[in-house]
Amino acid sequence: MPDPATLFASARNGDQFALARLLSLVERGGDMSRQVAGLAYKSPGGAYSIGLTGPPGAGKSTLTDHLIAAGRQRGLDGPGQVAVLAVDPSSPFSGGAILGDRVRMQGHTLDNGVFIRSMATRGHLGGLAVAVPDAVRVLSAVGIPVVLVETVGVGQQEVEVAAATDTTVVVVNPGWGDAIQANKAGLLEIADLFVINKADRPNAAQTRRDLELMLDLTEPGDWRPPIVETIASTGEGVDSLWEAIGRHRDHQLTGDRLAAARRRRLLREFHQIVAARVEEQIGVLTASDHFAGITESMLAGDLDPYEAADRLLAGVLPDGRGPVADA
Amino acid sequence: MPDPATLFASARNGDQFALARLLSLVERGGDMSRQVAGLAYKSPGGAYSIGLTGPPGAGKSTLTDHLIAAGRQRGLDGPGQVAVLAVDPSSPFSGGAILGDRVRMQGHTLDNGVFIRSMATRGHLGGLAVAVPDAVRVLSAVGIPVVLVETVGVGQQEVEVAAATDTTVVVVNPGWGDAIQANKAGLLEIADLFVINKADRPNAAQTRRDLELMLDLTEPGDWRPPIVETIASTGEGVDSLWEAIGRHRDHQLTGDRLAAARRRRLLREFHQIVAARVEEQIGVLTASDHFAGITESMLAGDLDPYEAADRLLAGVLPDGRGPVADA
Repeated sequence: MPDPATLFASARNGDQFALARLLSLVERGGDMSRQVAGLAYKSPGGAYSIGLTGPPGAGKSTLTDHLIAAGRQRGLDGPGQVAVLAVDPSSPFSGGAILGDRVRMQGHTLDNGVFIRSMATRGHLGGLAVAVPDAVRVLSAVGIPVVLVETVGVGQQEVEVAAATDTTVVVVNPGWGDAIQANKAGLLEIADLFVINKADRPNAAQTRRDLELMLDLTEPGDWRPPIVETIASTGEGVDSLWEAIGRHRDHQLTGDRLAAARRRRLLREFHQIVAARVEEQIGVLTASDHFAGITESMLAGDLDPYEAADRLLAGVLPDGRGPVADA
Repeated sequence: MPDPATLFASARNGDQFALARLLSLVERGGDMSRQVAGLAYKSPGGAYSIGLTGPPGAGKSTLTDHLIAAGRQRGLDGPGQVAVLAVDPSSPFSGGAILGDRVRMQGHTLDNGVFIRSMATRGHLGGLAVAVPDAVRVLSAVGIPVVLVETVGVGQQEVEVAAATDTTVVVVNPGWGDAIQANKAGLLEIADLFVINKADRPNAAQTRRDLELMLDLTEPGDWRPPIVETIASTGEGVDSLWEAIGRHRDHQLTGDRLAAARRRRLLREFHQIVAARVEEQIGVLTASDHFAGITESMLAGDLDPYEAADRLLAGVLPDGRGPVADA
């Protein structure tokens, strides 16, 4: 297999197989993933990322399909390539992406300017919260100007992944739990833009009122998320959605906003990487004979889990509790 | 405020305010939380915990309402007290529990044998994955025999919390995404029991077939999750559900199963506590002047996030990368 630098060179020349390999490496984690991520980080490119999230069945895949077309035909700075990362944390236990309704996007698979990829966690240390931003940077580094990140559900992980983009679009349906579900799932805080899809259904007006009300109750910032109505099945409203995305981008590009937002996200990512690395190390420690006695005492009921954690960490963390153990 | 030991004594005598205070302490985290958790751990009690999870709108609250009644009237070993933890991770960003449909359970609030509590993460280090088992142990320690843990959604966090109980009930509706959503959300792996609620709706039979098929495709264990049909609005099927829970409990009580499952969960909890403790320490380190230079270099693009993590951890972890820094 060619080394990452060679794969990057091929991918920049439009070799989709090379690009797919790079993303597989990122997804798989480990040393190769680090190399790929490092190379992408050092040649950032200029991609603008757009996240789509919302409950299953809201119509995100069909909307994504239309946004691919909008990106191809109009783009953000003119027509260009479009990449889609369909993020599916699926089972937190088994891992693995179910492609399911991605099939609908395959109308674009013959278009060489469109790159569609489904992503699950696999072995990546730090999970999707780190793997997806790495993947977005890879897509950016090979010269793709528009990256769509679509998540399947509204679990905390999906919400975080969708929020880790330049413009985050939250898709809801009329009457969907009176929009209160969007609040419950933390979608209100991350939305740069709301879409009421299936807007031809009853209660679309009510859902808009509910969202407006909830926005009224939110701490006002310098951007109030607009609410766009679409009917993804017919494509109605998709142009307005693309324009609204463009307006949010213009807003972000004013002053230092976009750069500042990316720095904040990068620091969060860094924190995740550090935490994952440490957790891995902790796993090694807890599995070692040296510490087996501690877990035994805990399971026997002699130490509560917090006391056990104290004992374990007394040998690891430089917090004055004790010297570093020769584990 | 009375100390935790005094609160436990009062709570054991039926003082619900004392119990509520203990749970507030657990939820809030910190030293007092540790004390409360430690006391509960050392006097375990005999509670059996039942988790309910499933998509929003599946009818979990109404089912919980019926299960409270079943627990009060029949119990698992005869009539007894029942506690409900309604777990609402809500916004991953703002925290705080939205009570919403909990109001329906208030028919039971005049019954002194029922204790209902809504829980969010608040300040608890380790989050709900640690706070909820702590809370269950507190409820057990004060002598409550049946604890219901209901989660609002199917995010990874909710799934983990619901799975961290002795019997996990997964509630779906007819036609709900062809049951494939249950698979996507990782619910298939954690279910000890499926409920098809609103079973009077069309497609209930189809949903049952889908679930059976998916169970057929799963690695067979020594327990195949039964599928119970209910109509929570009328109470139909709730008796069968309670009996099915009892049968799963009998199964778990055979041999070492229940004890082994609880040990496995405790080890996971322990790991979470350790990871959270370490992450907290990392937060202190990353904020320190000593390491400010590393993050600056990363933000400037000179170090990628992985290189920055290496530099940071070289001073912390005893993995041979370097001595402990005098941070």
